[in-house]
Amino acid sequence: MWMKNTWQVAAFASEIKREILARRLCNEPVILWRTQAGRVVAMEDRCPHRRAPLSVATLHGDEVRCGYHGMGFDADGKCVHVPGQDSVPGNALVRVYPIVERYNLIWIWLGDAALSDPALVPDVHWMDDPKWIPSNGYHHIKANYRLVTDNLLDLSHETYVHKETIGNGAVADSPVQVKLDRGRIIRAHREMPDIEPPPFFAHVLKHWGKIDRWQIAIYMPPGMHMTEAGVYPVGTPREKAYLIRALHLLTPETEHSTHYFWGNCRNFRLDEPEVTESIRKGIQHTFDEDKFIVELQAARLREEGDPAVPMATIKVDAAPIQGRRLLASLLEKEQQDPTFIAPPLLMADDSVVNYPPVAA
Amino acid sequence: MWMKNTWQVAAFASEIKREILARRLCNEPVILWRTQAGRVVAMEDRCPHRRAPLSVATLHGDEVRCGYHGMGFDADGKCVHVPGQDSVPGNALVRVYPIVERYNLIWIWLGDAALSDPALVPDVHWMDDPKWIPSNGYHHIKANYRLVTDNLLDLSHETYVHKETIGNGAVADSPVQVKLDRGRIIRAHREMPDIEPPPFFAHVLKHWGKIDRWQIAIYMPPGMHMTEAGVYPVGTPREKAYLIRALHLLTPETEHSTHYFWGNCRNFRLDEPEVTESIRKGIQHTFDEDKFIVELQAARLREEGDPAVPMATIKVDAAPIQGRRLLASLLEKEQQDPTFIAPPLLMADDSVVNYPPVAA
Amino acid sequence: MWMKNTWQVAAFASEIKREILARRLCNEPVILWRTQAGRVVAMEDRCPHRRAPLSVATLHGDEVRCGYHGMGFDADGKCVHVPGQDSVPGNALVRVYPIVERYNLIWIWLGDAALSDPALVPDVHWMDDPKWIPSNGYHHIKANYRLVTDNLLDLSHETYVHKETIGNGAVADSPVQVKLDRGRIIRAHREMPDIEPPPFFAHVLKHWGKIDRWQIAIYMPPGMHMTEAGVYPVGTPREKAYLIRALHLLTPETEHSTHYFWGNCRNFRLDEPEVTESIRKGIQHTFDEDKFIVELQAARLREEGDPAVPMATIKVDAAPIQGRRLLASLLEKEQQDPTFIAPPLLMADDSVVNYPPVAA
Repeated sequence: MWMKNTWQVAAFASEIKREILARRLCNEPVILWRTQAGRVVAMEDRCPHRRAPLSVATLHGDEVRCGYHGMGFDADGKCVHVPGQDSVPGNALVRVYPIVERYNLIWIWLGDAALSDPALVPDVHWMDDPKWIPSNGYHHIKANYRLVTDNLLDLSHETYVHKETIGNGAVADSPVQVKLDRGRIIRAHREMPDIEPPPFFAHVLKHWGKIDRWQIAIYMPPGMHMTEAGVYPVGTPREKAYLIRALHLLTPETEHSTHYFWGNCRNFRLDEPEVTESIRKGIQHTFDEDKFIVELQAARLREEGDPAVPMATIKVDAAPIQGRRLLASLLEKEQQDPTFIAPPLLMADDSVVNYPPVAA
Repeated sequence: MWMKNTWQVAAFASEIKREILARRLCNEPVILWRTQAGRVVAMEDRCPHRRAPLSVATLHGDEVRCGYHGMGFDADGKCVHVPGQDSVPGNALVRVYPIVERYNLIWIWLGDAALSDPALVPDVHWMDDPKWIPSNGYHHIKANYRLVTDNLLDLSHETYVHKETIGNGAVADSPVQVKLDRGRIIRAHREMPDIEPPPFFAHVLKHWGKIDRWQIAIYMPPGMHMTEAGVYPVGTPREKAYLIRALHLLTPETEHSTHYFWGNCRNFRLDEPEVTESIRKGIQHTFDEDKFIVELQAARLREEGDPAVPMATIKVDAAPIQGRRLLASLLEKEQQDPTFIAPPLLMADDSVVNYPPVAA
Repeated sequence: MWMKNTWQVAAFASEIKREILARRLCNEPVILWRTQAGRVVAMEDRCPHRRAPLSVATLHGDEVRCGYHGMGFDADGKCVHVPGQDSVPGNALVRVYPIVERYNLIWIWLGDAALSDPALVPDVHWMDDPKWIPSNGYHHIKANYRLVTDNLLDLSHETYVHKETIGNGAVADSPVQVKLDRGRIIRAHREMPDIEPPPFFAHVLKHWGKIDRWQIAIYMPPGMHMTEAGVYPVGTPREKAYLIRALHLLTPETEHSTHYFWGNCRNFRLDEPEVTESIRKGIQHTFDEDKFIVELQAARLREEGDPAVPMATIKVDAAPIQGRRLLASLLEKEQQDPTFIAPPLLMADDSVVNYPPVAA
């Protein structure tokens, strides 16, 4: 079950070219391609003639021509070519999905097209803002998206899963303050003063002494996540903290798999492309570790009939439990009212680069 | 669902030797082997003792001896050997299927053996007639046999699927006349006068100028198909056309897979074995393309619960729709009357090597 | 369906070290590891927090620490560590299974722990008795354990499946006497006097002339099997027979797969380690052959909805039929009375190294 009246990430903009890309989104088979003028088109991956997949169609100008019997469709999904006849059957239509290209991402609206409004695209401007540099990547996770959300809302797992990069004992041992912002966003804030730097942060700070670190796991359902991390050497001003705003943009593929688009945006060492690549490699490795444990967890849960988690609740579960509750309430609203929309809020404010220390 | 009271192709004759071949036919596991005298035997692939597959049995003379506990069966399926005892249990029988070896093919009768009559074997004499030379092959198609029949009855797909061999724009653009012959055979006839030759025909004709071409897709349910193609250079007499009678002999393997035996028989350049091989390679490649698109279509249909096709009907669907209707009516008759048999008709008449041009 | 109130083999003792081994037993995912003091611990392979498998946990001393969020459990399954908090939730328990380490095997009790009594471990002392030397191995069989039991109770299959090692015509042709011992053990006894030696026995006896051989297939449900084989050259005293007591210890993995631990124990040529290895290789190969045919049979049965076997009954089926009946009666008793236990009996008596010839 998933929200449909919402913009979700279908692809990185750079993925969509003058050829057809197939991708399953919320269990709908979709093809994505660019018109000659450069506009991105998303269509149902299914010919209305004999249901051959259009992912093996060919592009003739801005016409998608089915690879089986040659029925052709324009960028609006209208049939414009039938072999062996001049007229076109009225029911030969391919569903077209609203698309917005923004922040170097392709956003798709899988719900009621009449409700789609480009103003509702979530603000993730850090992905293409000149004051930030993203390190981008993608993971395919064989798990329901809720399990990835659980993972991202309880970052205590960094201590056990990500020992080699971003985790150490300080994460799990520091208390978390969880807040619900205007019924739309969860924020789980953790301050870690005067700690040994995990390897990843020592590396980007070029500082192997003790640091102050904060971390805010931010979740806006159904699938927008940001992890804000601030780090600075103990004794230096908080205002000069190196800041990472890591975006984790989740789109369900099926009930049991998830597209995980990520962009690790930093506000420091902007003119050092090797830092971009080094962060990308580190995060790739880190999220490989998440993929490993979350897929094992998902396989076990599936085998057991997808029972509720957690079975035993501990303090660090506060944020994932609130996240599930918020998601469930929004899903219920959409079920009850097909015109319901939950407008996005700003996930983080650039004018506030640091935050008051959290109460222990 | 499939017809049982009918002869279907189980194998090429050359496949069956003095060893056991396992093949699933209409979802029944069958073994095929030859007696010492050369007769082909088809048996249930299942020992009546502990249901071990007989496909791992060994042949001792004309006795099939189970590879597990050594129960032995003769060519009539009668138990003739039980280890450790002299008597044979009365219920130790292996089902044997009627077989006819004809036209270099092994024909099996999966229905009521009492109804099997060798005179009912469909006439595909082109497969072993000295006036014709076949290029033979086999494809395993992961699709219900109806989808392969649809494919063979709407040859407009040649334009899109087989651009490199037998297709070009002329096929899809030419009108088709569909006729039902005596409630038993569908014929879909297409005339393509004065066209550019598709690569395959230019090659066999050794003629790169314009040609006249005709094409008749012939279907006799449940699984006998012939595609007759006639080609000749524009200006030469129709009587001298190069004629291909391509036999496509479909036998269901399971509800979701099909054995596709084919023989591409020609009446020209009979003494040139390299032409036989060259056609075989060309057709192999051509049917690989069919396999690719039909399997994609089948996978999509299966995922969607096997809905009816076409969703949107166009002119070229006339033959496949009539073909499905004819098959359904025969299946229904067999369901209602277990002794029902639809005797085969002659699919094409050698005395008529060409046909009147079809009305546009 | 399987018996639970019984000791079953979980592993060879040598498999369990200071690291975590995952194994599914009667469909329960289990981890096995050794404490610092050397005691073997068996636990549910599932963290009570978010159901991550503990098979990817790490050992910290005698604490199993979950690889996801770091919840820690001691060797009694009690939670002793929760990241970020001092208290431990009362429901954070991991199930621990009773274990006995005996005869170089790890025995597990999957039923009611209160009923587990180390005195109920079946006596298979030949596995670590100085008067015997075992050749050990393991096979994973993709079949229900009952099919492996059938196989072991009807050794006539040796003639057909194991021609290269332990079988020849004499096995299938010799009559079997089947006895039920005190409602707990089946014994199927076969005497093969004055026979050609199968290759395996010629090799171990270093004797290529005729031999006398006996064989007793012994079964104590649910999964204890022994095959006793005695061989001696014709004309030498029966008291000097080379004796093999081959233990086949079956533990269901799932309804459709079986752990098959085996130890081929001999009472001859004890000081020749190359004989141990040579027997191990021969038996490995022999049981590969069983695996091949039993898995084919299981796949066929499963496809057909697991119907009863045998379909046709012959003399050699007497022991497997009695074995199934005995197993079924014990299973039924356990179903009706959850405290029911079937105490083990001695499978073979060392004081009697040979047996009276069976009546033909």
